[in-house]
This record gives sequence, C-alpha cells and structure tokens, in this order.
Amino acid sequence: MGEQIIKIGLVGFGTVGSGVAKIILESADAIAAKTGLRLKLACVVDTDTKTARPVKLPKGILTNDLDKLLKDDSIQIGIELVGGTKIAKQIQLKMLRAGKDVVTANKALLAEYGGELYKVAHENKRCIAFEASCAGGIPIVSGLRTGLAANNIAGIYGIVNGTCNYILSNMTSKNEDFSAALKKAQKLGYAEANPSLDINGGDSAHKLAILASIAFGCETALEDISVEGIEEISKEDIRYGGEMGYVLKLLAIGQKDDKGRISLRVHPSFISKDNSLARVNGPFNAVTVFGDAVGQVTYYGRGAGMMPTASAVVADIIDVALGNSATTFRHLNLKSRSETKRLIEKIGDSVSRFYIKVMCKDKPSVLAKIAKILGDNQISISGTLQHEGAGPDNTVPVVIATHLTRQKNVSAAVKELKKLDVVGAKPVCIRIVDIPEDKD
Amino acid sequence: MGEQIIKIGLVGFGTVGSGVAKIILESADAIAAKTGLRLKLACVVDTDTKTARPVKLPKGILTNDLDKLLKDDSIQIGIELVGGTKIAKQIQLKMLRAGKDVVTANKALLAEYGGELYKVAHENKRCIAFEASCAGGIPIVSGLRTGLAANNIAGIYGIVNGTCNYILSNMTSKNEDFSAALKKAQKLGYAEANPSLDINGGDSAHKLAILASIAFGCETALEDISVEGIEEISKEDIRYGGEMGYVLKLLAIGQKDDKGRISLRVHPSFISKDNSLARVNGPFNAVTVFGDAVGQVTYYGRGAGMMPTASAVVADIIDVALGNSATTFRHLNLKSRSETKRLIEKIGDSVSRFYIKVMCKDKPSVLAKIAKILGDNQISISGTLQHEGAGPDNTVPVVIATHLTRQKNVSAAVKELKKLDVVGAKPVCIRIVDIPEDKD
Repeated sequence: MGEQIIKIGLVGFGTVGSGVAKIILESADAIAAKTGLRLKLACVVDTDTKTARPVKLPKGILTNDLDKLLKDDSIQIGIELVGGTKIAKQIQLKMLRAGKDVVTANKALLAEYGGELYKVAHENKRCIAFEASCAGGIPIVSGLRTGLAANNIAGIYGIVNGTCNYILSNMTSKNEDFSAALKKAQKLGYAEANPSLDINGGDSAHKLAILASIAFGCETALEDISVEGIEEISKEDIRYGGEMGYVLKLLAIGQKDDKGRISLRVHPSFISKDNSLARVNGPFNAVTVFGDAVGQVTYYGRGAGMMPTASAVVADIIDVALGNSATTFRHLNLKSRSETKRLIEKIGDSVSRFYIKVMCKDKPSVLAKIAKILGDNQISISGTLQHEGAGPDNTVPVVIATHLTRQKNVSAAVKELKKLDVVGAKPVCIRIVDIPEDKD
Repeated sequence: MGEQIIKIGLVGFGTVGSGVAKIILESADAIAAKTGLRLKLACVVDTDTKTARPVKLPKGILTNDLDKLLKDDSIQIGIELVGGTKIAKQIQLKMLRAGKDVVTANKALLAEYGGELYKVAHENKRCIAFEASCAGGIPIVSGLRTGLAANNIAGIYGIVNGTCNYILSNMTSKNEDFSAALKKAQKLGYAEANPSLDINGGDSAHKLAILASIAFGCETALEDISVEGIEEISKEDIRYGGEMGYVLKLLAIGQKDDKGRISLRVHPSFISKDNSLARVNGPFNAVTVFGDAVGQVTYYGRGAGMMPTASAVVADIIDVALGNSATTFRHLNLKSRSETKRLIEKIGDSVSRFYIKVMCKDKPSVLAKIAKILGDNQISISGTLQHEGAGPDNTVPVVIATHLTRQKNVSAAVKELKKLDVVGAKPVCIRIVDIPEDKD
C-alpha cells in the first residue's frame, strides 16, 4: 500500500507545540511504517518567530501569519495549541471554515464554547479532535468514546490536575505546608507562575465537563459543575484524615444514578488509602471509570508535559487522517443543554460522607454541644478523633467523620457550629468519597 | 441524524456470547442514543439450541445452521465466540468470504493463524476486530492502535491471565499451596476444569503475540515467545521473594531495544512490591506500556468474565459499524514474518536478574562452593537470604538474588549446582524483573 501524505498546520509553538513538531519530524518514518500515513509539518504559526525552541524546524515553515495556513488548501489538519479562549476560539473557527479538521488540547475553550465550535464543525463537515485536552498522554477520551462505548457509565473519578496532585502528594508525604509545596511545584515547572486555575479546581472542571459529556452523552457546561479548590487545605487536615485511613486528593467526579440524574463535582476528597487512586503521586494523573458491563477500568499516566501531551495530539492527528475521528465525531449524539440542565443535581442535594474538623476550647460538654448540632441536622457520626493537648488559641481539634448526608445539612450544621462560644477558627469540611471498588 | 440499523450474527452462545446478546438486546437504545447506530441481533448460531442461557433471545433467531448467518446479506457483522482453533477458523473464513466483517475474542486462533486470517480479510475487503481477545474489558488493543499510535513502544508488561493472577494472589496473601489455590479458582469459576492453557502460560503467550504485533508493528508468532508457567511455583519461594521486597506475578513481557531487537517472554516474575502491577490482585488484569513520548501508561480492569469481555466485543461491533475498524485494519502495516524472525532475541541471550534458591546440606563451605560456581559463570550476587534451621532432607534453603546476567549463564550455573554433593532438590530459578518506573 502506498503512503498517503498528510499535511499539517500547527498554531502555537510553545511547549506542547514544540513536542508535536518534534514527534512529527522525528517519528514520521515510524508512523508511516505502522499506519501508511506520512505526516508533513507544512506550516507553524506563532506570534513569536524569534525565540529558540527545543526543536529545529525545516526552513521557511515558521511564520506569524495565520493566513499562510488558512489559504493553503493542501493542509488538511490544523492544530490549535495557543491556549486561552479568545484568540484560540477565532483560530479554530477560521480553520474549520477554511475546511481544516481541528486537533486541540484546549480544555478551557472546549469546556466553555464546545457546543458552538462543534456546531460550526458539523456545518463545515469537519471534526474537532481533543484527546490531549484531558489527562495529557492518557488516552481517556478515545477510551470513553470507543473502548467503553458499549457501557452505561455510572461514574468517573479522576485525578486530572498534576499541579494539585503534586502539591497534595508533597503535603502528605513530606508534611509540607500548602505554600511551600506550591513554591516547589512552581520551581519544578509543575505549576504556572499564576497557578490559580489549577489550584482553584477550574482546570479540573474544564476536563470534567469534556469527559462527562462523552461518558454521559450530554452537552455539559461549566455551570453544571460544583467546584472547590485546594487553596485552604492544611497539612494538619491531611494528617488527621490519614490517621483515619484516608488520603486527600483533588477529584473530578461525575456520577449518574439509575434515574439518569447527573452529579458533577470537583473538590478535595478523602479517599481510602487502599484505593488505587490513593497511590497516584506527584504530577501523575489517573481516571477510574465504572461501566455497567466492564466494571472498573483505571487509566494511569502522565497528565501533562511537553511529550505526553504531544503524544495525544499526534494520536489525534493520525485518527483524523485515517478518517476515524470524523466518523466518531459525526456519530457523537449529545443531549442538548436544555435536556442536560434538567438532569444535573444541585450541589446542596448531593450526598456524601464528610470529614469535619472543629477547633474547640478545651471545656466540659464541648463534644456534647457539637454532637447535638449534628444530630439536629440529621447528621450521623461514623467516627471521631481527638488528640490531647491544645493547639492555637488554646483550642484542640475535634475531628468527626460522618455517615452519608446531604451537603445542605452539613452547611446548616457548620453555620450553627460557628456560633458556638466554645468553637475557635472556622470549621473545616472535606468530603469523604467512597469510590466503589470492583472486587469479587 | 437518523438511526443506522446494524444487523449482527453471533456464532457461539456460551458465556461471553450470552453477555454480548444481553448488551445488544438491553442497551440498544442507549447505544443508539449515543452513536446513532441501532444494533440488531439477527441470528445466533450454536450447536446447542436447547440449554437455557442467562439471556432471553427474540423468537426464531437461535439456530444450529451457520448458513442462516452466511446467506443473509443484510447481516454485516459476524461475531465468532466459539473458541478453539479448528472450527472457529473455518467459521471466520466463511464469514469473511461471505462479506461479513468479523469480531472475535479468540486469542488462540489469532495468535496461531492471525496472518492467514488477516490476508483473507484484506482480500475480501473486510476487517477483523479483536479488542476482546486481550485483557477482556480493558481497551488495550485500541489503546495501542490509536491512543498511543504516535509512540515508539519500548516495553509492554502485562498481567493478562486472571486465573494465574488469582492463584498467585492467594498463594501470596493466604499462604496457600499451588494445588489448593488452583482448586479454589476452579470452584469460583476463575479456572477451567482443564486449566493447563492458563497455568502453563500458553494463554498469556497468545495475548502477548497479539499485543506485541500491534505495539512493535510486526507479525509475531507463538514460536517467537519463550513461555514458562506457574505450575512449579511454591509458596516458600513466594515467601522468600517477599522477604527480599518482591511480589510474584506471571508477566507477559515484550521489549524492544534501541536496535529494534525484540524480546518476548511469558514467565513468573518477581517484581518490586512498590510497582503498581504488584498491587493487581485476584482475577484482575493490568498492562503497563512505555512509549517514547507518553512515558508510562497503565491500564487496569477485568481481564475476563461474561460482561467485561462482552463489553469489548460490543465496543468492536460499534467500531466496525462506524467504519473505523476497517480503516485502522487496512492501515495496520506489520513487518512480515521473515523480517520479524530476524529481530527476535533468543531466550538464552535475554538478560535479567534472577532469584536462585538452592536447598543445601548444612555443611561447612557450602556457600563458598555455590558462590564459586556463580562467579565462574560471570554471575554477580546482589543479595542473599538464609534462614537458620533445616528443611526437608535436612537441607536449608539458600536464596540468592543476582545482578543482571544472561539466561544461558544461569542455565549453565544451575547445571553445575545440581551436581554439587551438598545440594538437595533441583535449584529454583525465577526471574527478577525491574519494570522501569516513570518518575520525576
């Protein structure tokens, strides 16, 4: 079989863009041998055409003029790796309208404007491929779309932000403060200079919006997702939770119940130290999916970085070039926003177990007062932990683990706890998530 | 978009066949909603049309006449779930020649006659899809083919036989003998009445032949794979290895070095207790893949069973119906047998660390004699373990862990060790496999 030449235009020559160029230039022979497709980098567009990159491009293909890509009809596939939502959106729209299929790693853009972009793609009989947008090199998007396509998905539990996982891993294993762990992550390149979108859970929410839309077959939006970050996590809470058998992770959670109701949340989560996600450390990602036929499937790998993300981008290029992405994209029927909205569970109604820490003055009947407030709010206690000796403000931490309870009951209880004269700092509430284990 | 009707003929109405029928019958609406494809079970062929199955078929579709499937031109996809290599091969050939695409879980058939079947498929412009043939519900075939397509794969390390993993897990955690653990596995349905193909490593070798062909892009055959089973593993060896920090697993290993040389082996393997594969217990499967761009990716899930395997079969049906399997299949360029053969490393040349146990009479200078034989064969010792007190025949176990050494040197050394008058039973050799860990 003869080789088929696939011409590619790349927009955004940053870290991931350099990785993509590197694979296309260095692995073209190997990819051609395996697939019969010869990938050719025809054009690389970036506003900065001066700074040296870790890959040497063929002469004359680096430009700051997007039109060179748009007007070259021999270019079939446009890769958008600019990031952000404004310029990137315009670039994707222009590429689709110019008849190019689009490959992107831009989770923020898809989470916010996916519906609009998909519509334009369909109108122009083009496709958008986005394996690299979720969990970097881990092929979770194709896993959900094809490998697990026969399943009714009941749950997704993902560690999908390497920055947060690196910080929490260090706070856990090295007893570091949040700010020290964050500084280290920045020094090592695991966190941006402005890390807010990572640590406030926003990045995880972008990825969850994309994964949930495929897993549950509905057009999800960011507004459907309840988001809490890790900014207020203290190493003491990680330690107390650890003493109760839990490890703290920032989880992106999507659940669908028997009635089709969907719960989408990103929040710090205490999970059993025996769960496989508890052992995912440093900048790694992992996603556990539960399907009605397959049971549990867990994917583990690098969720970010130059080459892992480039691996996913180039996988998409191959899939688009083969025509498979177009077919899958065309056949991906998502429930509309209005239908989806009705299915989304309000966060106040969500049911979870909770870790509650109350800093109490060491006085008689403190525990009784706390227990009464919890009981009055229909919250049942599954365990408590109280160390001897006083902490700051002469208070001692009283830690309570609850049975399953509604979020709104806990919010109401915390409000009352704060008013107690024996309670010092603001109570801390962290969800305990019992990820089902598929066991025999 | 209107629904597209996909008519399916199923051959083999056993456990997995029943699972496939169940998904097609019960999840047709959900699959149609997600993909636009309405799967219709048109025909189920089995020699036994009497025995009750755990799924109720529509009237009139169960038959013992394969021609009903072959001659119905409205049936596009034929599923072969008969198993074995004789009749199954004829069925697949007939279906391909009758113009049906084929979906199968038959690893033995593909490992032995894959080349021949693929040729007939290409001649008839049909495809063969076989996600279910490896690691049951885990989408590892599509993962290697599409998700990791941009990578040069350097290694695959898989626990791909649930029977062996169940037996070894029980020998490890419950200190059971091999025969007791096997009996329990049979009682629970994790092992067949005749378990030999599982415990002798043959089943793992079938799966490795398939995975390696995709990962390394070459036509592999069973003769390329060196195979050892778990029949001679004793709980004592598992315990001594455990004391040295290792867990015993039956691994299917495919490695490619920088020069393109390929090593394919199935054997009991001591791996570090900290490696993620060490924590894969009971009937579960997991596969770790190393790609040059993506680094480490690990897949975990159920490797067998009615519904997990059916999940993979139906995923293939959907992929075939979308036309994606045909494209991928057509573009899968494998190096020919003659080219592949030259690349395969001889097992004697393979380099590994080793666990060597020698039962010695408790006499002076025993260790010196053993050490001399190892040294004479260029085998360097990395650790030893000797407990006090005598075992059977008044011998004591001396356990030695070696540095990297060639298989043939170890074989030569063992031959000499056997001749020593101070050595009792036959020495035990088990490979220690240092699976690379992708860490920062």
